[in-house]
Amino acid sequence: MYSFRNDYSEGAHPRILNALMETNLEQEAGYGADRFTREAVEFLKGKMGQADVDVHLLSGGTQTNLIAISAFLRPYEAAISASTGHIFTHETGAIEATGHKILSVETSDGKLTTAHIEGVLEAHTDEHMVKPRLVYISNSTEIGSIYYKNELEELSACCRENNLLLFMDGARLGSALCSEESDLSLSDLPKLVDAFYIGGTKNGALIGEALVICREALQEDFRFHMKQKGALLAKGRLLGIQFRELFRDDLFFELALHANKMAGLIRDEISSVGFKFLTHSPSNQIFPILPNSLIAKLEGKYGFYVWEKINSEHSAIRLVTSWATKEEAVLAFIEDMKRELD
Amino acid sequence: MYSFRNDYSEGAHPRILNALMETNLEQEAGYGADRFTREAVEFLKGKMGQADVDVHLLSGGTQTNLIAISAFLRPYEAAISASTGHIFTHETGAIEATGHKILSVETSDGKLTTAHIEGVLEAHTDEHMVKPRLVYISNSTEIGSIYYKNELEELSACCRENNLLLFMDGARLGSALCSEESDLSLSDLPKLVDAFYIGGTKNGALIGEALVICREALQEDFRFHMKQKGALLAKGRLLGIQFRELFRDDLFFELALHANKMAGLIRDEISSVGFKFLTHSPSNQIFPILPNSLIAKLEGKYGFYVWEKINSEHSAIRLVTSWATKEEAVLAFIEDMKRELD
Amino acid sequence: MYSFRNDYSEGAHPRILNALMETNLEQEAGYGADRFTREAVEFLKGKMGQADVDVHLLSGGTQTNLIAISAFLRPYEAAISASTGHIFTHETGAIEATGHKILSVETSDGKLTTAHIEGVLEAHTDEHMVKPRLVYISNSTEIGSIYYKNELEELSACCRENNLLLFMDGARLGSALCSEESDLSLSDLPKLVDAFYIGGTKNGALIGEALVICREALQEDFRFHMKQKGALLAKGRLLGIQFRELFRDDLFFELALHANKMAGLIRDEISSVGFKFLTHSPSNQIFPILPNSLIAKLEGKYGFYVWEKINSEHSAIRLVTSWATKEEAVLAFIEDMKRELD
Amino acid sequence: MYSFRNDYSEGAHPRILNALMETNLEQEAGYGADRFTREAVEFLKGKMGQADVDVHLLSGGTQTNLIAISAFLRPYEAAISASTGHIFTHETGAIEATGHKILSVETSDGKLTTAHIEGVLEAHTDEHMVKPRLVYISNSTEIGSIYYKNELEELSACCRENNLLLFMDGARLGSALCSEESDLSLSDLPKLVDAFYIGGTKNGALIGEALVICREALQEDFRFHMKQKGALLAKGRLLGIQFRELFRDDLFFELALHANKMAGLIRDEISSVGFKFLTHSPSNQIFPILPNSLIAKLEGKYGFYVWEKINSEHSAIRLVTSWATKEEAVLAFIEDMKRELD
Repeated sequence: MYSFRNDYSEGAHPRILNALMETNLEQEAGYGADRFTREAVEFLKGKMGQADVDVHLLSGGTQTNLIAISAFLRPYEAAISASTGHIFTHETGAIEATGHKILSVETSDGKLTTAHIEGVLEAHTDEHMVKPRLVYISNSTEIGSIYYKNELEELSACCRENNLLLFMDGARLGSALCSEESDLSLSDLPKLVDAFYIGGTKNGALIGEALVICREALQEDFRFHMKQKGALLAKGRLLGIQFRELFRDDLFFELALHANKMAGLIRDEISSVGFKFLTHSPSNQIFPILPNSLIAKLEGKYGFYVWEKINSEHSAIRLVTSWATKEEAVLAFIEDMKRELD
Repeated sequence: MYSFRNDYSEGAHPRILNALMETNLEQEAGYGADRFTREAVEFLKGKMGQADVDVHLLSGGTQTNLIAISAFLRPYEAAISASTGHIFTHETGAIEATGHKILSVETSDGKLTTAHIEGVLEAHTDEHMVKPRLVYISNSTEIGSIYYKNELEELSACCRENNLLLFMDGARLGSALCSEESDLSLSDLPKLVDAFYIGGTKNGALIGEALVICREALQEDFRFHMKQKGALLAKGRLLGIQFRELFRDDLFFELALHANKMAGLIRDEISSVGFKFLTHSPSNQIFPILPNSLIAKLEGKYGFYVWEKINSEHSAIRLVTSWATKEEAVLAFIEDMKRELD
Repeated sequence: MYSFRNDYSEGAHPRILNALMETNLEQEAGYGADRFTREAVEFLKGKMGQADVDVHLLSGGTQTNLIAISAFLRPYEAAISASTGHIFTHETGAIEATGHKILSVETSDGKLTTAHIEGVLEAHTDEHMVKPRLVYISNSTEIGSIYYKNELEELSACCRENNLLLFMDGARLGSALCSEESDLSLSDLPKLVDAFYIGGTKNGALIGEALVICREALQEDFRFHMKQKGALLAKGRLLGIQFRELFRDDLFFELALHANKMAGLIRDEISSVGFKFLTHSPSNQIFPILPNSLIAKLEGKYGFYVWEKINSEHSAIRLVTSWATKEEAVLAFIEDMKRELD
Repeated sequence: MYSFRNDYSEGAHPRILNALMETNLEQEAGYGADRFTREAVEFLKGKMGQADVDVHLLSGGTQTNLIAISAFLRPYEAAISASTGHIFTHETGAIEATGHKILSVETSDGKLTTAHIEGVLEAHTDEHMVKPRLVYISNSTEIGSIYYKNELEELSACCRENNLLLFMDGARLGSALCSEESDLSLSDLPKLVDAFYIGGTKNGALIGEALVICREALQEDFRFHMKQKGALLAKGRLLGIQFRELFRDDLFFELALHANKMAGLIRDEISSVGFKFLTHSPSNQIFPILPNSLIAKLEGKYGFYVWEKINSEHSAIRLVTSWATKEEAVLAFIEDMKRELD
C-alpha cells in the first residue's frame, strides 16, 4: 500500500544522508557551536538576503512553536490563531502548558485577516482578560492554503499598528513558497514577519526546523530558552549538516517543487473528472471531496486520511505529497481512481 | 588538535548510519508508531528481561529529564539531587521551569546515599515546604563515579519505605554498566528504580535517549507529556532505527567498553606517574589533578576542560573518551604527557 | 448615583464585622488552623449533611478556580467550559497560566449540556490533542441562569461515565440555590459534583470563598497547592470568622434571598411594561433589553453595565442586586424607569 | 497560655476595624479602583516622598513574592536568596512553581552581601545554566537581623553594576525600620531597591501587603499579573481601607515600635541573666539560647517555637512580639523565667 498520509513517511533525501556520512568522524563542538551549523546559518542568511536575523536550528514544529512563542510573550499575553491552527488543535496544549492562552478565530480557509485580528483586539480591553500580543499564522496552512504577498503585507501592517508580533509557522514553508500561485519569496519574510521557521522535517530532512528571529528585541538570550526546554542537541551537527545541505544550493526548493508537482498532478485529474475540494490548496496537501464508495475502494490500495464528513455520501480526504513521492505512485493512484469511476 | 572534551564530538557509529541508509525510503508511520521503534523497544525489553516496562525514545538528556520528572510529580512535589546533578546545575533550570523545586545535597563523590535522603525528608515537614517525592541520581555521575549494586539496593529500599520515586539519569549508563568495577547489569535496573533512561547520544547514536518507565503508575498517558513538550518527532524512525541497531546485538555495550578502555589507558598511566584524581571514576570520564605547567603544554595539542582549581599550582582537568576515541590518540596523549614530565 | 453594577460594591454584612470585632484579640493559630475556621467548616458540613468532604477557605473566585483546577488536572488535561464561563474570558488566562487549555463551547444560556460535553470528547482522540478531563460550570452562570436538578444530574452522570470531573463555580451559588425556581439545595451538591465553591465575597462577606472537595481522590495534600499559590492567609481567621457567621445559622441564605427578591422586583416591573430579557435569569443578575434612549436617561442616576448591543436602537444592560441592595433604591429605579416611559 | 509564637495571632488594630465599620455601606468600585485604595496609595507615596513609584495592595507575603518575582523575570532568569530566605524554604516552592530557580547561598546572619552575589555570578556563565537576575533580601530577615544603610547601598550598587534587580521582602519591614539600630527610613528604599513590599499582616492589619515597584521598567501591566494569579480582590477596599488607616498618620510605625519595645524588654532581661542568642536581632523576633530544662518549664505557660538544637542541653527558641503583645504578658514571662532560674 502506497501512502499519501503525510510528508514524513520516509527518511531523508539521499544527499543529506551522504553529508552525514562524509562528516561523521570530524570532531566538532557540541550544542550548535559546530562549523556545520555556522555554515548552514550563513547559507540561510544568504538565501534570505538578510544578515541581521538570528537563526536557530530545532528538532520539530511543536518544539519550535512552544519555545518561540513562550520566549516572545510575557505571562499574561496571548496568541491569536485560526481555529485550524496547529498550535490550537494538534499540539496537546503545548502553548497553554507554557502559560499562554490562544485566542482562536473561525476562518473559512485557515488564513487570518486583519478583520479577525481587530475583532480579537476589540474584545480584550482590560486586565481581567489576557492581552493579545502575537499573531500566529501557518504558511502553508493546515488545510493547504497559502498566503499571498498582499495578504501578508496587510497582516504585517496591522500587527505593527497594534503592537502585535507576527509569527509564521513554516512547517510546510517550502511547499508554500514554491507553489505555482505564490508571489512570496523567502527574502520577503524577514521584512514582513517578526519570526518564522523553515520546516526541514517535512521537506527532506530527517529532523529539523530553522527558526529565524527577525525582530532584534526578540533575539536576546534565545539559546537559554532552547536549553531550558530541552532543545539544544548535544550533537547539534545533526541539524547543521542537514540545513547546510538543503541550503548550500537550491535543494530545499527543488524538493518542495517536486512535492507540489506531484500534488498538482492529482489535483488536476480530480478536478478534470468533476470533483470539488474542501479548500483551495495550491500546495502539497489537497482535500478532494469524493464519494464514500470511491474512498472505500481507494483505501484498499492507498494510505490517506478521511478528513471530514461532507454529507451522507461524500467525504473530504487529505492527500499529501512530498519530496519522496514517486511519480509512478501518483500516476497509479490517478489511474486507479479513474478506473473505479468508469 | 585531538579532543577529549566530551563524548559527543563525532557523529554516529557507522552501523547506525548504514541502518539509516538501508531503511531510508521505506514508508512508515510517524510519531514513533513505526516498525523500527517497535523493534527497538522489543530488543530493549529483551536485554532488560522485563516485558512490562514502557519504553519511549526521546531526543536528549535535558528533554528526557524534564518530561519524565514533570510527568511524575504533582505541582508541589520536589526532586532530591546531588548538587553536582545535571538537572541542578546544567539544564538552565529546566525542572524548575516545569514548576518543581530541586532540593540539593552536597556529596563528596556525586552519589546520593540514604543519609542524604533522610536528611532532606526530616527537614520537610508540612505544607509550607515542598514535599520531597523523587530522588534523582546519575549513573555514571557527572564526575565519573558509578553506583554499585548494594548502594542502589539501599537507595531503592529507602525510596520505597518513604514513598519516594527513584529516577536514574543514564546519559552515560553504558559506560557505568560496562565499567570494570560495575556489578550492576541492565536487567537489575527495572527492579531497583522507578524509571531510568539509557543514553544513546553519548554512546554512538546521533541523537536519542531511551526512557524506561518501570513503575506502572507512572506509565499512563506518557505520550501526551511527550507531545506537549515537543518531544514526539514526526520521523520517530530516526530514533527507532538507531536504538534498534544499538540493541539488536551488543553494539551498545561494545561501544561503552571501548570508551571505558580508552579512559582506563590514560587513567593507569597518569596513576603510574604519581598524579592523583579529583574523584574515583571508573568510567569514561576521568579528572586527574595535574600541575598547571603540564596542563598548559597539553592544551596546545589536546582539547579538554580545566575542571577545577585545586591550589595555586595544580588543577583538575576532565578527560572524556567515547566509542569514537582512537587508541592512537590516547597513546599519543600519554606519550606527550610523559615527555613533558621528563 | 446608586449602583447596580455588581454585588461587591459594599463591605460586609454588619454581623460579620461584629464577629470580627468580638474575636479580635483572641490569640489563635495561623494559616487556617484557628478555631473559627474549624467551626466554620463544621457548620458548613452540617448544612451539607456531608461529613467526608474537605472544605478550604480561599480569598476569591479566580484564586479558587485556578488552584482547584490546576490541582485536579495532570499537565496535559483540559477543562471544558461554556464560552461565557468566567475562567474562559474574565480571569486573564489564569487557568492557562497553570498550564491547562480550556476547551470552550458556545451555548445559548451559559449552561453546559451533555451534548456539549460529548461533542468535545468526540473531537479529542489521541495524544496530539489535550485530554478533556474536567467540566467547569457556574451556578448561577455569568448571565444569570441557573441549573435545575435534573440538568445537574444528567451532567453528573455524563461525567462519571466519561471519567470527567465536574466542578461548579459558585461565586453566586447563594443566589442560584435561593432562586424561586431552584429545585437544588446545598446538600444535593456533594452527591452530584466532584468539587464546588460557595461564594462569600458576593454574598455578604468582605472576602472569601469556601471550596468543597467532595471526591476523596482530589483531597490529598490540597493545602500544599494553596500555600504554593499564595492562598494560605497568615490570619486565616479572617475567613473562618466570616464563614462561621454566614453558616452558623441561615444568614448566608437570607442574604441571597434578599438579593434575589430585589432583582425580582425589577424583573417583574420590566416585564410588565413589555421589555424582553437577553436570557432567562431567575437570580440576582438580570439583563433587560431596553431602548438606548431609556438607557441613557437611567445612566444619569444609576450605575450599571451596558452588556451587549442588540440592534441599532436597543441594548441589553446588566443589573445586579445583592444582600446590601436597598429596597428603596430598587423602588426608585422602577419609578424612574416608568416615569421615563410615560 | 500566652503566645509568643508569631506576630499574626490576633486580628487587627482596633482603628482598622473601626475604619471598616465606618465605610462599610459606601458603594465603591471593585478590584482596587475604590477611593480608599487611591487614598492609601497617596498616603504611602507621601511617606516615601516618591511620586513615581507604583503601589499595589495584595493579600499576603507569598502571593506578593511570587507575583512580583515572576512578573519581573524572564523564563530562564533566576533569583538569588539566602538559604534562610522565606522564598527558598517556606513558600512551598512558589517561585519555582512560576518557573524560576532560586540560587541559594549560605549566610551567617540571614543577610546577603556583595560577596555572595559575586560568587553566584561567577558560577553562572552560559546558557546551560540559569541567568541570575534578581536579588531577594528580607528586612528584617527571617532570623531577626536587619540591613543597615551602608549594607543596602553596597548591595544596590552591586546590583546596578551587574544588571541585577534588587527586591526586598518587607513582611516585617515595620519592625526593621523602627529598630533602635536602624539607620534606614522608608524614604530611602525607593532609591536603593527596585521593588519592595510593606507588610501589613504582621503589623496590625487583618490582611495585606503593599508592593512598591520603583523601577519604571517593571511597572508595566502589573495588574494583569495580579489578576492572572488570583490577587485582585473584588472588594479591594478591604486592603485600601486598612493601608489608608495605617499610613494616614504614623499608626504603622507606632505599632512596629511597640512590637520592638516588647521584644527589647525580653531581650535585655535574657541578656542580663547571661544567656546568648542565636543571632543578633534588633527587631521583633529574638532567638535566645536557653537550657532545655528551662524551655520545658516555660512551654507550660507560653507558646513559642523551639527553633534549633544547639547542643545536648541547650536549644534556641524563637520569641515574637507584635503590635498586640501586652506588656503585662511580657513582664510575666520575664518574671517566670527568672523564677525558674533561681
